[in-house]
Amino acid sequence: MTIPADLLADLRAAVGDAHVWTDPARIAPHAVEDRGRWQGHTLAVIRPGSTDEVAAVVRLCHAARVPMVPQGGNTGLVGGGVPDGGVVIAMGRMNRIRAVDPLNATLTVEAGCTLAAIQTAADEAGQLFPLSLASQGTCQIGGNLSTNAGGTAVLRYGTTRDLVLGIEAVLPSGEVLNTLGALRKDNTGYALRDLMIGAEGTLGIITAAVLRLFPRPAATVTAMAACAGPEQALAIFDILRARCGDTLTAFEYIERFGIKMVLDHLPGARDPLADPHPAYVLIELTSPDPEAGLDARMERALAQAMEDGLVPDAVIATSQTQAQALWSLRESMSDMQKHAGASIKHDVAVPVSRVAEFITRGVAACRAHMPDVRPCPFGHFGDGNIHFNLTRPAAMSDADFLAQYGAFNRIVHDLVAAMGGSISAEHGIGLAKRDELPRYKDPVALALCRTIKAAIDPDNLMNPGKVLAMTSPATRPLERIA
Amino acid sequence: MTIPADLLADLRAAVGDAHVWTDPARIAPHAVEDRGRWQGHTLAVIRPGSTDEVAAVVRLCHAARVPMVPQGGNTGLVGGGVPDGGVVIAMGRMNRIRAVDPLNATLTVEAGCTLAAIQTAADEAGQLFPLSLASQGTCQIGGNLSTNAGGTAVLRYGTTRDLVLGIEAVLPSGEVLNTLGALRKDNTGYALRDLMIGAEGTLGIITAAVLRLFPRPAATVTAMAACAGPEQALAIFDILRARCGDTLTAFEYIERFGIKMVLDHLPGARDPLADPHPAYVLIELTSPDPEAGLDARMERALAQAMEDGLVPDAVIATSQTQAQALWSLRESMSDMQKHAGASIKHDVAVPVSRVAEFITRGVAACRAHMPDVRPCPFGHFGDGNIHFNLTRPAAMSDADFLAQYGAFNRIVHDLVAAMGGSISAEHGIGLAKRDELPRYKDPVALALCRTIKAAIDPDNLMNPGKVLAMTSPATRPLERIA
Repeated sequence: MTIPADLLADLRAAVGDAHVWTDPARIAPHAVEDRGRWQGHTLAVIRPGSTDEVAAVVRLCHAARVPMVPQGGNTGLVGGGVPDGGVVIAMGRMNRIRAVDPLNATLTVEAGCTLAAIQTAADEAGQLFPLSLASQGTCQIGGNLSTNAGGTAVLRYGTTRDLVLGIEAVLPSGEVLNTLGALRKDNTGYALRDLMIGAEGTLGIITAAVLRLFPRPAATVTAMAACAGPEQALAIFDILRARCGDTLTAFEYIERFGIKMVLDHLPGARDPLADPHPAYVLIELTSPDPEAGLDARMERALAQAMEDGLVPDAVIATSQTQAQALWSLRESMSDMQKHAGASIKHDVAVPVSRVAEFITRGVAACRAHMPDVRPCPFGHFGDGNIHFNLTRPAAMSDADFLAQYGAFNRIVHDLVAAMGGSISAEHGIGLAKRDELPRYKDPVALALCRTIKAAIDPDNLMNPGKVLAMTSPATRPLERIA
Repeated sequence: MTIPADLLADLRAAVGDAHVWTDPARIAPHAVEDRGRWQGHTLAVIRPGSTDEVAAVVRLCHAARVPMVPQGGNTGLVGGGVPDGGVVIAMGRMNRIRAVDPLNATLTVEAGCTLAAIQTAADEAGQLFPLSLASQGTCQIGGNLSTNAGGTAVLRYGTTRDLVLGIEAVLPSGEVLNTLGALRKDNTGYALRDLMIGAEGTLGIITAAVLRLFPRPAATVTAMAACAGPEQALAIFDILRARCGDTLTAFEYIERFGIKMVLDHLPGARDPLADPHPAYVLIELTSPDPEAGLDARMERALAQAMEDGLVPDAVIATSQTQAQALWSLRESMSDMQKHAGASIKHDVAVPVSRVAEFITRGVAACRAHMPDVRPCPFGHFGDGNIHFNLTRPAAMSDADFLAQYGAFNRIVHDLVAAMGGSISAEHGIGLAKRDELPRYKDPVALALCRTIKAAIDPDNLMNPGKVLAMTSPATRPLERIA
């Protein structure tokens, strides 16, 4: 299938010849997912430079009934940006900071700004945009918004949704939705902003957003505490939250197997404590007030945890270098896991009060299925969000292990569902979990999602096949993904 | 028009005879709005006691094509709960606290719980539910959710939407939507929770919610500072926010005319400072840490504001009684305004950076229309949310003044719109602003709201005529409101 010649001419007229790519070599990177899990296919990559151009492109594609896949930095982890036929609308040229308003504590940005560029703009305004992700140099805010991205500061600042006041988006019809208000409070109709956020580009293309800024931390204290396992970690969390309130910015969990992988493979990594321990929590306190006394608060909280017999040993970083070294143990986890062989990963959440029970039961259930499997649960413990990853047994081939992908998904997701949890805490649904969703989502909720999708995108042209497996007679048959 | 006999029998079977009211005297209070601004009409009041009963009632009404108006404490300020024919579904019997989970920092509550009961339940769990409103003894959480209520702690904790993790709702079809997860992170499909919140009962009836709790403040400091007017208030706010960060819980603005009304009419009210001043800000800092040093922080911030020439005089409350006396000056404002004659009120928001400019321009524009009008702008300055109220000239009759209601609405709302603001910051749309909405809302956004309403409630049976002026052939003609 090729793109109709008249559509191609119209698209070139709309955005300029230089910004409509059909050369196979040039469009190839836009048709794959980074880790090679999906190989997509696209007829063309269109690179609009303004909201008007996005609207013109969408109107043209809509009229021609050609599916559209919006794409930011293409760093998503669930295949939501992989095209399956149709055209890719790549947002990277829309990368202007439209407005900086320090007194309102807002930035107005275009969807194609990288997260790192936005962090820099906030910093230059003397404030903080707290969203922070491993891919921040490449990922674009439009993608962060469309997936309601999480990250390491959710505990204190919330998910991406919580960091947004208004959005501008092009609907599947090509109309421009303008809810770009920079307002803290606005009760004039339905929550259209929130509907577009997290919709993974299936209801329209976010073109701009008003983002909330926060006072820049003037003090930061980072610590790593050892503990016996998830039950103890939960008790430590409870102490920290009660004693440190809003200054508690991060509370991450790592087990010894994860730390060991990083120590074995990350150049320069050092064991954080003198002796090995079964598990660790990484704790960060921050405050915009330099006189908030964070060191003393961290010390008092850890002292109580030690008195309670929860923490045998702990280290409080005394320099930024030391703090970064502690963080690198946590942040290298995903990368270092590769050295130990194939992994089967789950991005799940349960109520915080049940996160320890979840880890314990999850590990037991996976070992019951495969006794030598090496569980590596880690992540945003304080949000109830665990990256419940499994590394293959040392003596098993990658292929043999990955043949159990579906079986492990079933074990872990069934447990999550039984515990009132979510099978996708922060990565989204995309293609990866689309066919899991009907099994676990409330059927009325799923039907309501379909009703909304059908009402807003009746021809199913906007990122079709992502999140919801919907087809429509008006959509051309999609090409299969390899 | 009376209720069909077969429907009445079925409703009685569904919820019990005692909970279907048709006696005119008994249903009368459910058909009026508190302040007497709307006189509605209803065929019956149905009082279901469980989610299953709500679902059964909605299915029956849906099948009979009888409109339904969900009602909580009936304390709303925009007529959203006033029935215009059809039946009222009153939620007060659904008043159970379903679950308390201190470790997850959540409460699961039914929609008919009063806000005060929820505050008490949170307190008994050693935590804080921060939503606080004048009507909290009567209003129900279902109404707070449906209007995305604001209040005095939005600056620190956000609006009601920000305090909710999950909801349960009965859709217009009678199906039960279960997104009652107690999860901090859940990216599995569209933001249905957020769509139901703030929909004012037009997309379904919220029956339960999972609410977020917060550490209870261990320290509170309240102060009132004088200033010359809104520009100075904004500069003071900027200092407080930068110096006090998250401990800044409230920042309210009041002008001398407002304080004077309270002093004249509230028994026991005392002038907060030795001399009168043109304007005042009420500032509250709170922290869960008793050692957070709030007194010193407030003193330092106010000292800087004085050095900068912004604050000629200020008082920091030295007892809870004194703090309450300062708060009562602010909280009595709406009530005390009645003594000065008729008011024309506006609940509006602009970006925080423009709130001073808005007050100045708004006052000038209203005086240009009526030189002796007495403006009384006050409210949630730190959120950019001003209750821009106008009191009649001392020498004018209420009737003559109220004849200018529409003219003043136009002046104030036109200015708000020109400044990128909202004509309803925290009270909602209901009936009061329904016909203003098409003038000020982005037309694409308004059309999208209608598309969503039509998709979810195709027969327009759920709180018809509120928020959006929609009609449908399947709806019986509504009876006019007096």
